[in-house]
Amino acid sequence: MPEPRLHFVTSNENKRRELETVLGEPLGQESFDLPELQTSVLEDITRHKLRAAFDHLQKPVVVEDTSLYFSAWNELPGPLVKWFLQNLGPDGMVQALEPFRDFRANAVCCLGYTEDGETLYLFRGEVPGRIVPPCGSRQFGWDPIFQPEGFAKTFGEMSGEEKAALSMRARAARQFREFLSGENTSKNEP
Amino acid sequence: MPEPRLHFVTSNENKRRELETVLGEPLGQESFDLPELQTSVLEDITRHKLRAAFDHLQKPVVVEDTSLYFSAWNELPGPLVKWFLQNLGPDGMVQALEPFRDFRANAVCCLGYTEDGETLYLFRGEVPGRIVPPCGSRQFGWDPIFQPEGFAKTFGEMSGEEKAALSMRARAARQFREFLSGENTSKNEP
Repeated sequence: MPEPRLHFVTSNENKRRELETVLGEPLGQESFDLPELQTSVLEDITRHKLRAAFDHLQKPVVVEDTSLYFSAWNELPGPLVKWFLQNLGPDGMVQALEPFRDFRANAVCCLGYTEDGETLYLFRGEVPGRIVPPCGSRQFGWDPIFQPEGFAKTFGEMSGEEKAALSMRARAARQFREFLSGENTSKNEP
Repeated sequence: MPEPRLHFVTSNENKRRELETVLGEPLGQESFDLPELQTSVLEDITRHKLRAAFDHLQKPVVVEDTSLYFSAWNELPGPLVKWFLQNLGPDGMVQALEPFRDFRANAVCCLGYTEDGETLYLFRGEVPGRIVPPCGSRQFGWDPIFQPEGFAKTFGEMSGEEKAALSMRARAARQFREFLSGENTSKNEP
């Protein structure tokens, strides 16, 4: 089997599968620890990870970072959502939000891509929605408590295909796919 | 006036004053941005800041990082407390904790010191207490919502002297003071 042309740094197989579904090609999965900045700006975290990932691999590399913003909490959990999940779990997150009586939320994914470690490309996908009591599969982070706008079920209740059609990661990935096909076209020009 | 022998990297004058009160000597205050790692381990953040601060200044330097742990929330807010403050404020933090009906908290300060950027010294001070509705001065972070164990008032209701006698930063600073006086003694030995 030839080496995949893109390498995705993640320890999360679900994320890799979601990305492969949209891009329509297999990704090399690299799982090593990337330092993450403590900041509320998702793009800064992604750029920082991207540079560190390229330094490590020295080949075209893809990274991502995902944020979940509660309207009632300004920029929180934001990119810090993994700490909320790890310490409060999905149930605790809903419990902590309850007194604020505003359950609107925004899910954002930032994909980063670089070929040379110098030029960094970022692709952002967003999905508005609301936080609800946990429902459906608990396998993938905060999926069971996020209900995308216009749907009566959570990400946790959706199939991989349903989610791949509308998730923030899929939205970012579609932009990335367009960018890649544009790149290929121009490279194929005489 | 001679140059202070210790340089403290902080943009927070209150922190500098607290530290000076305990150490009994003026500190040079340096305020430049230090990158902070996104981790729940306070010591790792302090070490990372310390190395970055020494790289920047190239002289003996002191940094600190402070954490507030809610018993009901495992390692949160922890070192991420600044984001909670910035986005929820002290009132919002109390509100989010309320449904958990456990208000015990632990305040921890980690002071870091290096002379040469190689050997890093860490000093840890802890104060157990509880989270209460905001009371007293709102000038200094989460002081108005933290009531140290054995006291009927919050840090926000205490004078600088009272706080300097018992705060987590003062406790870490006293260890640092002892270390410095030990250092001086041994250096003065023939």
